[in-house]
Amino acid sequence: MQDQKSNQQDRAPLGQDGEEGLIARHFAPLTRDWPGAFNLSDDCAAIRPAPGQELILKTDPVRAGVHFFPDDAPQDIAWKALAVNVSDLAAKAARPLAYLLAISFPEKPSGDWLRAFTAGLDRAQREFGCVLIGGDTDRAPGPLSIAVTAIGEAPAGRMIRRGGAMPGDLLFVSGTLGDAATGLMLRSGSESTKNWPIDAAARYALIDRYLRPIPRLGLRAGLRASANAAMDISDGLAKDLARLCRASGCSARVELAALPRSIPVDGLLEVDPGHIETLIGAGDDYEILASVPPKNAESFVALATAGGVPVAAIGSITEIKDASTVSFFDAEGAPFSPRRMGYDHF
Amino acid sequence: MQDQKSNQQDRAPLGQDGEEGLIARHFAPLTRDWPGAFNLSDDCAAIRPAPGQELILKTDPVRAGVHFFPDDAPQDIAWKALAVNVSDLAAKAARPLAYLLAISFPEKPSGDWLRAFTAGLDRAQREFGCVLIGGDTDRAPGPLSIAVTAIGEAPAGRMIRRGGAMPGDLLFVSGTLGDAATGLMLRSGSESTKNWPIDAAARYALIDRYLRPIPRLGLRAGLRASANAAMDISDGLAKDLARLCRASGCSARVELAALPRSIPVDGLLEVDPGHIETLIGAGDDYEILASVPPKNAESFVALATAGGVPVAAIGSITEIKDASTVSFFDAEGAPFSPRRMGYDHF
Repeated sequence: MQDQKSNQQDRAPLGQDGEEGLIARHFAPLTRDWPGAFNLSDDCAAIRPAPGQELILKTDPVRAGVHFFPDDAPQDIAWKALAVNVSDLAAKAARPLAYLLAISFPEKPSGDWLRAFTAGLDRAQREFGCVLIGGDTDRAPGPLSIAVTAIGEAPAGRMIRRGGAMPGDLLFVSGTLGDAATGLMLRSGSESTKNWPIDAAARYALIDRYLRPIPRLGLRAGLRASANAAMDISDGLAKDLARLCRASGCSARVELAALPRSIPVDGLLEVDPGHIETLIGAGDDYEILASVPPKNAESFVALATAGGVPVAAIGSITEIKDASTVSFFDAEGAPFSPRRMGYDHF
Repeated sequence: MQDQKSNQQDRAPLGQDGEEGLIARHFAPLTRDWPGAFNLSDDCAAIRPAPGQELILKTDPVRAGVHFFPDDAPQDIAWKALAVNVSDLAAKAARPLAYLLAISFPEKPSGDWLRAFTAGLDRAQREFGCVLIGGDTDRAPGPLSIAVTAIGEAPAGRMIRRGGAMPGDLLFVSGTLGDAATGLMLRSGSESTKNWPIDAAARYALIDRYLRPIPRLGLRAGLRASANAAMDISDGLAKDLARLCRASGCSARVELAALPRSIPVDGLLEVDPGHIETLIGAGDDYEILASVPPKNAESFVALATAGGVPVAAIGSITEIKDASTVSFFDAEGAPFSPRRMGYDHF
């Protein structure tokens, strides 16, 4: 009875007011009365950085079937859509302020779906410290598509770049690697995962790492004070580190034994050493790769720890020697050639 | 031979470098070395408004099959993707500065397609005075999808709003109405259009109005100096004027005889008076609706004319009388009820 009533209440505004009703009912509360959002009832949003700051912008859309499963919980889809963009702000040591949201629905969403989706956005934006200030909704054939434009703030001219790494820098990575990709395998339910020595709680935790990446905003102070370069790892360590090296005109060496891994992934590596490829080549981790001069290493680790983000030294930046931008070495110091070098859309 | 060589040159970077090669080759030149774009080789873009200004943001994605035809020329698709967003900046009296571009390709685009598409972007951004500063490309099933986030600048706290209209204001509209929708009918090639009294040159011009909307940036000075409220007309006069009225807490009356129309649409109205519905209810015009106090009307027209934008007074803003927000009147002063009230996605 309760459900029926709420469904009826919901159908009326969607039918009467269409797009405007949907926005006013479900999305406008996410502006938290932020002045430049104009309660989502104007054509544009207005925003300016604090004096001495500049705005840092990122847009990285997610689509059903590519970046998430169509039957993922709407809360989780919302979280991921915002988190993958805020992760880039975190890697640039920017403070999240606001975001725009453009959603394309293949069909009219139900009130239940919208309530769950906006609850997920609400939780994510509270966690990340930003508010919705504008966007667009429409209906178009094809997969559900969600384009967030994340807007952060950083001291003018001092955004942490990809291209600032110097030979001799130590390479750090936040958190643990390969959890999200391992979680994706579990989420997909492939046969081989059924024999993995991972209990139900750990399976849940790994899947959660895939579904709900955590932007490493606690690393901001450490990056700003201590890092020469940084970027987030969305397409895999090997691929993203190669990008950082190319942008910096350097090479890098990575010690596989130093790659930080969670307890369940560590257990999995004992029975399947080949799973190391997942830590090197698989995407979705959204951990941060930072290039830090040795003299700053201690302060970087201290500031990261104070920010609640574990970091591990995994290698170093070197002069360019040959065509191989990134070299991996196993525990015996022997070179290791990964089978996969990361995700590429083209 | 020339073509073959250029195709070979093109395949190599796409094959070797994937997404990065595609961006470096085709999109990075569109940044025009704008510093905060970092040549599209970093994760985020950086931008700040001039002192005393704030940034005005808009995102409105376009998708094949909904906002354009899949076989439209890539140059025209690019133009429209940028123009529909810049049109909103124009309506807010903001000066375009920059844009982010997120494209999702259903399949790997050819070098020819990319060259034509970026040529269209180049032409549009030169015309509008902005540069590409960031974005994302990926591949996903579904229609070609292009999400632009347009970034403009306006004096802080003085963006022209939807909600500022006052009873007694005169309503102005820029350009002519119904051309784009008439062009869309011609573009679709429906049988009825074949007998229209419109010659080939005029058909071409009307289709061009659909394919390549012109953001009315020349209206900026007039809006800033003289208007209480403004918005662009993307979903049809009736629907968008009703939005302006709701945001302003007012009603409006519109004189059908005053609606500005192009010569071919005027000729069409003589043989088919029902085509007036297209001027009232059809979208895609991207003209600007402005609410102007009578004392400012003369200066508004003068500034618009100086900016190269024709404007016409089509009615007035009134106190709210009843449920009907917008009332239309024919040449004899009789009320007119439109059959369609504009486009809604939901």
